[in-house]
Amino acid sequence: MKFIEKLDTAARQNKSKLCVGLDIDLAKLPKKFLDLEDPIFSFNRRLIEKTSDLVCAYKPNIAFYEALGIYGLQSLIKTIEFINEESQVPVILDAKRGDVGHTAQAYAKAAFEIFKADAVTVNPYLGHDSLEPFLNYREKGVFVLCLTSNAGFRDFQTSIYLSVARHVKEWNHFGNCGLVVGATSAEELKDIQKIVGDMPILIPGVGAQGGDLQHSVQNGGKRAIINASRSVIYSPDPRAEAEKLRSEIYRFS
Amino acid sequence: MKFIEKLDTAARQNKSKLCVGLDIDLAKLPKKFLDLEDPIFSFNRRLIEKTSDLVCAYKPNIAFYEALGIYGLQSLIKTIEFINEESQVPVILDAKRGDVGHTAQAYAKAAFEIFKADAVTVNPYLGHDSLEPFLNYREKGVFVLCLTSNAGFRDFQTSIYLSVARHVKEWNHFGNCGLVVGATSAEELKDIQKIVGDMPILIPGVGAQGGDLQHSVQNGGKRAIINASRSVIYSPDPRAEAEKLRSEIYRFS
Repeated sequence: MKFIEKLDTAARQNKSKLCVGLDIDLAKLPKKFLDLEDPIFSFNRRLIEKTSDLVCAYKPNIAFYEALGIYGLQSLIKTIEFINEESQVPVILDAKRGDVGHTAQAYAKAAFEIFKADAVTVNPYLGHDSLEPFLNYREKGVFVLCLTSNAGFRDFQTSIYLSVARHVKEWNHFGNCGLVVGATSAEELKDIQKIVGDMPILIPGVGAQGGDLQHSVQNGGKRAIINASRSVIYSPDPRAEAEKLRSEIYRFS
Repeated sequence: MKFIEKLDTAARQNKSKLCVGLDIDLAKLPKKFLDLEDPIFSFNRRLIEKTSDLVCAYKPNIAFYEALGIYGLQSLIKTIEFINEESQVPVILDAKRGDVGHTAQAYAKAAFEIFKADAVTVNPYLGHDSLEPFLNYREKGVFVLCLTSNAGFRDFQTSIYLSVARHVKEWNHFGNCGLVVGATSAEELKDIQKIVGDMPILIPGVGAQGGDLQHSVQNGGKRAIINASRSVIYSPDPRAEAEKLRSEIYRFS
């Protein structure tokens, strides 16, 4: 199934615009998992079992798995396999890749064929030919960074983020593009959404980063995807936390 | 040893500004390697044995290893280990990473502690706080993308590349910054080099991508690092090809 159909289906079935970020930190894992054979996969499996009827997507950030070496990346592969087998929820691999043509081709292959994600995040700095190999996987989703949720977005993004949105709108020949816009820029989100219409907009930065949930939901358009990571996954009761967030989002929709 | 000292030492000892890019493509590997137990590592080892007295750095691009899955990443780790054990040549991991603070921290850990590179390439789109975790590894080198060698650089980079150069100059508190500027922009390289002075500038895009070798060398400053990948590594005689390039660079210096 195409990523966008999978996203719409999960959002409709689970009545949810919530995406849970699977950002693993061994130091934060409850002790009981550390004694298991594969602590990371075991932790993720429990999370997925507890939340897969409450979310529209999962978003593992590959950095946290890579930082644990080969073993971490194996756990990532197992985690995505588990999501694909046990649920209908799409997986957005947060990788923020960006490189010249034939190298981008290798990254796209890794994201979609090795890690078997349904969508991936990419960095626009290198321009259209760096995104094309991703876009050519027509069934897959490609979320282009537009305006990020960290303080450093001011260094270079402010002068080009609207141009990024306009370009991505133009490059969306196969209907598989999305954008990433931080919840910390909920006002700018409104202008961006006007440019791209119903394109999925992945919105990280609520919760731990202090973004504005209400305006993110209201300004993010029909396919706003609200991401929360640490506030859900390290909660003593991730299911309750996910349910709470899903309801808040629903109330603002 | 600090990356920059390792770079200067290798450049002086080997009388070389040539960096060889270890961009592996199974389809291009000579047949004799495919029968070996670890074709990628075996191919790289032969290359390194044949060229380690001719280069100032090696630059594996992680994308090509990631595209081969766990096995490819294991070969990358073995390759860097081999370079570190058998030569004095520094390794620049071409990864073009860029993410928000705590995620960037994970990427920096992966690059320097898992893959054990001496330096890494990063993407400036997310600004200073996304680069800080890399820069805090004071012994390591951090090459920030400025102006890339692909056609797509025109989409977003032209309005900000000089600002990137100025910011990186300012962020260089520990003397461990570098820039990446494509050989296809040899004229712009002159302006960039004036801003950053003796900072190392990694210059890809000669060879297969058709960049201008002479002007790249002349405009790249004292620490220009000229990268060639496919034209050297898939040559029937990589040593002869590397020697030829090293001499050409020397003639233009």
